[in-house]
Amino acid sequence: MIEMTASKIKGSSCVFAVNEKGQSIEIELVEERALTIYIDKKEIVTLMTMGSFPELLVLGYLKNQTFFETIGDIKVLQVDWQTNAAVIVSSKKNPNIEKLKARRTITSGCGQGTMFGNVVESLKGQVLAKRSIEQSVLYYLLNHFGQRNQVYKKAGAVHGCALCKGKEVLFFVEDVGRHNAVDTIAGHMWLKGIKGDDCVFYTTGRLTSEMVIKVAQMGVPILLSRSGATKMGFELACEFGVTLISRAKGQHFQVLNGAERIVFDVTA
Amino acid sequence: MIEMTASKIKGSSCVFAVNEKGQSIEIELVEERALTIYIDKKEIVTLMTMGSFPELLVLGYLKNQTFFETIGDIKVLQVDWQTNAAVIVSSKKNPNIEKLKARRTITSGCGQGTMFGNVVESLKGQVLAKRSIEQSVLYYLLNHFGQRNQVYKKAGAVHGCALCKGKEVLFFVEDVGRHNAVDTIAGHMWLKGIKGDDCVFYTTGRLTSEMVIKVAQMGVPILLSRSGATKMGFELACEFGVTLISRAKGQHFQVLNGAERIVFDVTA
Repeated sequence: MIEMTASKIKGSSCVFAVNEKGQSIEIELVEERALTIYIDKKEIVTLMTMGSFPELLVLGYLKNQTFFETIGDIKVLQVDWQTNAAVIVSSKKNPNIEKLKARRTITSGCGQGTMFGNVVESLKGQVLAKRSIEQSVLYYLLNHFGQRNQVYKKAGAVHGCALCKGKEVLFFVEDVGRHNAVDTIAGHMWLKGIKGDDCVFYTTGRLTSEMVIKVAQMGVPILLSRSGATKMGFELACEFGVTLISRAKGQHFQVLNGAERIVFDVTA
Repeated sequence: MIEMTASKIKGSSCVFAVNEKGQSIEIELVEERALTIYIDKKEIVTLMTMGSFPELLVLGYLKNQTFFETIGDIKVLQVDWQTNAAVIVSSKKNPNIEKLKARRTITSGCGQGTMFGNVVESLKGQVLAKRSIEQSVLYYLLNHFGQRNQVYKKAGAVHGCALCKGKEVLFFVEDVGRHNAVDTIAGHMWLKGIKGDDCVFYTTGRLTSEMVIKVAQMGVPILLSRSGATKMGFELACEFGVTLISRAKGQHFQVLNGAERIVFDVTA
């Protein structure tokens, strides 16, 4: 059983700015904090995060970067904002930890921008569950998300991500980096033992290669975004069988892969 | 004198998607390619890029990550899209190269998301040139950028950056990661020996800590963005003396730092 300390912290704060009329205005800025991860006293990486769910972020990061096989391999996870450190004590050492640190790919994703080289290989041949989704459910969710992105509305400069099951939003998170938001959800799924195979993943961010890879890692077959996709994101979605829906806003969307799994039940 | 091979490559390509009406539509997707940098046969990092100006991107990356002191230390820079490799032959070895690789900070910036630890320290105490800018020039530039972001208009999923001097746009570049775009401009400045002290830097991306740090590295005193800022981006702008202008769109903007250097010459 993993031992965790919850550490809530302020997500944004106010500063004064001058607008185009020369008037002084108070605006809210999102916090951006350094959080350095240590595994058994070894420095792994420093993430820049808003800090909404740091423990889940660290968990998801470690899972997506394949530092640990099972959550049981983590004995203690402690986040301390005095030292900006996330300290992990493992119960089972990963022999490849140096190898995992060595290979660095800086991705075009927002925010947490690295994938360790072995991740893509580990997904080869993986086929995701074939799930259909109703257009009406898509619209319901899109409308719902519009009400959830609180930090974005106040301070901007963040990305939002959500894990959904049917019309239910299981988890919603915002962070300065969209990959932090994704990893936070991965951490939540890992901790709660949630299987992604009947879920839909929503992000406000672009559908780049790393985003598709992470969703495939989480076993979520449907990826929905307000933004556009890259060619590589599209190609990986085809390879892994991810239903890829881009530019989903209001009553509009573009299905790049898996259109046969969309139930068009809304008649204009 | 650095020896460089120019390698032009396609920035986007078309695929078929299905829209909300169930109709098949052709859409353009931006390319996202892996480009692995090797210095004297040593693998440094892999960048994900659209590949518009790969040589300038690599140059700027190496400069901003302080891998080389002067461009003269680079003898050969060759980009090969067959092997997705950028091969650098140095004329002066950097003794700290392993140290530079060791420390990893994954930032909340879009795209190329790492800053090596030593960079921030190296900027301590640096004071940028105090330059004023007219509101009318800001509006002129903002209007101009709207016509320049060609890839974004066609395919989306990219960020644009520009280096400006007065009303003149010296360089404009788009990439899947906004930090690639920034580094490409840094590479252009390095190669052409352009001093940034009388320039304005524009980005479509958010004003995070890394963005402010990079502009300070480039010696550019005014940073302008269509997007919002983070608290840390704001604090670093104050520390380095960067005039920080966020949410600049059309006839609107918010000056977060250096408002005294804005000449309000437009009367509504």
